[in-house]
Amino acid sequence: MRKLLVIGIGTGNPEHLTVQAINALNCADVVLIPRKGEAKDDLAEVRRQICVRFITNAKTRIVEFDLPVRDQSGEYRQGVDDWHEAIARSYADLLKAETAEEGAAAFLVWGDPSLYDSTLRIIERLKRIASFELAIDVIPGVTSIQQLCASHRIPLNRIGDPVVITTGRRLREGFPTGADTVVVMLDGECSFRHLDADGYRIHWGAYLGTPDEVLIEGPLADVSDEIVTRREQARAVHGWIMDTYIISRIAS
Amino acid sequence: MRKLLVIGIGTGNPEHLTVQAINALNCADVVLIPRKGEAKDDLAEVRRQICVRFITNAKTRIVEFDLPVRDQSGEYRQGVDDWHEAIARSYADLLKAETAEEGAAAFLVWGDPSLYDSTLRIIERLKRIASFELAIDVIPGVTSIQQLCASHRIPLNRIGDPVVITTGRRLREGFPTGADTVVVMLDGECSFRHLDADGYRIHWGAYLGTPDEVLIEGPLADVSDEIVTRREQARAVHGWIMDTYIISRIAS
Ligand SMILES: C[S@@+](CC[C@H](N)C(=O)[O-])C[C@H]1O[C@@H](n2cnc3c(N)ncnc32)[C@H](O)[C@@H]1O
Ligand SMILES: C[S@@+](CC[C@H](N)C(=O)[O-])C[C@H]1O[C@@H](n2cnc3c(N)ncnc32)[C@H](O)[C@@H]1O
Repeated sequence: MRKLLVIGIGTGNPEHLTVQAINALNCADVVLIPRKGEAKDDLAEVRRQICVRFITNAKTRIVEFDLPVRDQSGEYRQGVDDWHEAIARSYADLLKAETAEEGAAAFLVWGDPSLYDSTLRIIERLKRIASFELAIDVIPGVTSIQQLCASHRIPLNRIGDPVVITTGRRLREGFPTGADTVVVMLDGECSFRHLDADGYRIHWGAYLGTPDEVLIEGPLADVSDEIVTRREQARAVHGWIMDTYIISRIAS
Repeated sequence: MRKLLVIGIGTGNPEHLTVQAINALNCADVVLIPRKGEAKDDLAEVRRQICVRFITNAKTRIVEFDLPVRDQSGEYRQGVDDWHEAIARSYADLLKAETAEEGAAAFLVWGDPSLYDSTLRIIERLKRIASFELAIDVIPGVTSIQQLCASHRIPLNRIGDPVVITTGRRLREGFPTGADTVVVMLDGECSFRHLDADGYRIHWGAYLGTPDEVLIEGPLADVSDEIVTRREQARAVHGWIMDTYIISRIAS
């Protein structure tokens, strides 16, 4: 049976790699690295650095491949669905071409494979369409949430209290009920601006774990504009940005 | 200035250690390991194994110490407050005794330091009462949530949807509103039994990351009793148990 290793690599710092991840990398016959287009070259670069630094098995090959492109013309969900299907097919072809029947291939997943990442879902499709058997191994990694808290040196939750993890789009529908602490990911639009600035504190971080890390925290009323400005500047300089933040209700 | 390294060690598998964590360990003059009483000796053992396996700096010493005991007689919050204060004082004494003025000490924190752990809060107190300056460095780690998903090979969230992280006590007040996926930690009582079993699926895991890992998943109606029984048996055998689970609403 072929083996597919889905390896969490942490969020930007190559030293986020766990011993388990390093061992898995060195068990793989081939590490498959997607080329994702110019803007995110920095991210492909982190993946390359990880391979160069941690692969010691001379037999492990690195293969870069082009991901199918998403058709953005039609309806969103259908577009994503078709795109995932196309990726699954290209994975199937790659595995067939690059691994022997008892071989192992590895995918490097940013952060942890469970968190807002579609690799595992695409692999489910792959298993359905592939003409060969496939065993999956998932190796957990440090998420951007953990690095955000570490960089700010803060606990995520209040004692015994719940935490909501959500997206920018969802935050724009309103602050979630039932929790005083909310982590926001996948937010391209500084959606915290839709909240009543007087009620919340924010811990914000961009390029977490990398040498370019930016951290800002404070009452939303005080730092909201600063974050919007810094985010815009940083994105202009780098050509891309990844940011995550924690919004917590100020006890009244 | 003294330095305190707060190192996430992952949840049971020594190979969860990151390269960053290993380097931090080897920067410390002393690693402080609490003795937590008989039942949890297995956990102290994981910490010891980590030190033996990953500390290569001959100058790094390991010091075990007894944690103050919590007074359980009075009101809960006050009891915890007094206990944290006592721990902070004992940390201050330890640091003073075991590190030089420019020295570094390390604490090993189970999983990630941000998630349902009081170390960072206690260190805030420590900084207030200590007679010396202290710099804090937090090194993120793999959480039991990541390992739970990895072991079950599942994504945590549905596409673009939020996730709630909560405790057993909170779950007993009802399934959180506004999310279809809920992670439950710190649950000593199988609180999923309080839910309508027909509406949910569960992914449950105990001793995650260790050789004793137990995994059960399925519709709550089918596996609820099995989990309760297996949990009771395992706890009797080991003398302790740590379990975490994901409850997801079945789309109707
Ligand atoms: C597609 S999700 C992947 C999350 C990833 N699997 C993880 O475990 O963190 C991408 C989102 O993660 C967050 N993110 C990932 N890496 C980050 C970083 N280095 N700094 C800030 N945010 C990051 C951002 O919110 C971004 O929009
Ligand atoms: C005090 S909290 C600490 C959590 C830890 N900081 C983390 O990142 O996972 C302890 C709770 O974490 C969960 N937990 C920690 N380690 C676990 C393991 N190896 N298996 C299952 N659950 C675990 C359980 O829900 C337990 O009640």
